[in-house]
Amino acid sequence: MRYTVYPVHTLLCEPPRGAAVVIDTLRMTTVAATALESGCSSVRTAATVEEATRLARQTGALRGGERSAVKIPGFDLSNSPLEYTPERLKGRPLILTTSNGTQAVASAEGAPRLYLGCLRNAGALADRLRGEEEVTFVLAGTAGRFSLEDALTAGALLGRLPSGEMDDMAVAALALYRQNRSRLHELLAPCAHYRRLMALGYGEDLRFCLQEDCSRAVPLRLPGEEAFRAARA
Amino acid sequence: MRYTVYPVHTLLCEPPRGAAVVIDTLRMTTVAATALESGCSSVRTAATVEEATRLARQTGALRGGERSAVKIPGFDLSNSPLEYTPERLKGRPLILTTSNGTQAVASAEGAPRLYLGCLRNAGALADRLRGEEEVTFVLAGTAGRFSLEDALTAGALLGRLPSGEMDDMAVAALALYRQNRSRLHELLAPCAHYRRLMALGYGEDLRFCLQEDCSRAVPLRLPGEEAFRAARA
Repeated sequence: MRYTVYPVHTLLCEPPRGAAVVIDTLRMTTVAATALESGCSSVRTAATVEEATRLARQTGALRGGERSAVKIPGFDLSNSPLEYTPERLKGRPLILTTSNGTQAVASAEGAPRLYLGCLRNAGALADRLRGEEEVTFVLAGTAGRFSLEDALTAGALLGRLPSGEMDDMAVAALALYRQNRSRLHELLAPCAHYRRLMALGYGEDLRFCLQEDCSRAVPLRLPGEEAFRAARA
Repeated sequence: MRYTVYPVHTLLCEPPRGAAVVIDTLRMTTVAATALESGCSSVRTAATVEEATRLARQTGALRGGERSAVKIPGFDLSNSPLEYTPERLKGRPLILTTSNGTQAVASAEGAPRLYLGCLRNAGALADRLRGEEEVTFVLAGTAGRFSLEDALTAGALLGRLPSGEMDDMAVAALALYRQNRSRLHELLAPCAHYRRLMALGYGEDLRFCLQEDCSRAVPLRLPGEEAFRAARA
């Protein structure tokens, strides 16, 4: 197994080989996993609000996401995973547009198997990845900068996978996760994105997003497909 | 104090404000600090072998550096800090060209105070940085990819500085350093650059480069200057 971690998605210059895992733990990939867990039929990402609106009009999908961490005017759902309940999502397709996560998905375009990873689906996703020869983790970050919670999530996945060849960022992510898994909130407390969500009153979101192994929903998109769907066990 | 760490120098898009610290622990910034410690009069960086050769011809400087980690044909010195002894360096100017460190210096161009940092001069450099309102750490990495030893060095510096506002990579670097300072070799052993240097027989270089607080020499370049000189205490 070979594991590569890109600290920021903008550093990715060519399509990943094997499996790629896009990680935007706060909150886009957590939202996507939660939506599928709630019975949402598919999750499609859009780069812009206009594109999301156009796709939703064509398909009857719900629109969710954020700009500057808050709900987009006219959208059905914000970027809070707590809103993605079975009552709202069951059987419905979803279009998401966010500031960082959906751009990171675009950067990983062309991967043979493209997954969305978060702490909540870490165990289930690791089960899927076992057997891959090459796994590339693409961290969304925030506005082109490294986000620690995404690295911790990559570490959580690496900690659940067989050992293999790791690049330096994978070694760092695994050490950060192993040495801090019992104090994730404490470690992240000084971080800008964590503090911003806390200041906006999203403390419950932070608690939800930093829980491990709560969901078996693994968003997967295959080449030629337009949307992520729950990978079959 | 505000601390920002760029995991790879290529992510830096504008000149840093305040003090910038370029870090290429294996081995360029360790070489530069060691050269100045040995009495070298100045250290200039060159992007290419040709530029280094032209500058050396004009100034009578020694030429040092590497390509693919090995000595450049015709150069006076390789990129092994062990060669940078007082016998070779005392009173001589030096031109360095390396694969990553000298490119990272170019990325940090325009900083009001530009330092070169490594583990050996961490304490002395932290003494210089105290009082700066803003410090930007620019990690050289390897071929555009993150290198863990550079992050550990940024963490070593942050651990010696007053607390302040940190970006996520600074939080990560500080945690990685604090939690692994007694086992740096063990942590780095699976990393590509460390393994490559070990395979090339540079085990003694690795030991030397990963020692902390052995040198008071702090390479500093001010705007308008062409070379790094030892910062005065």
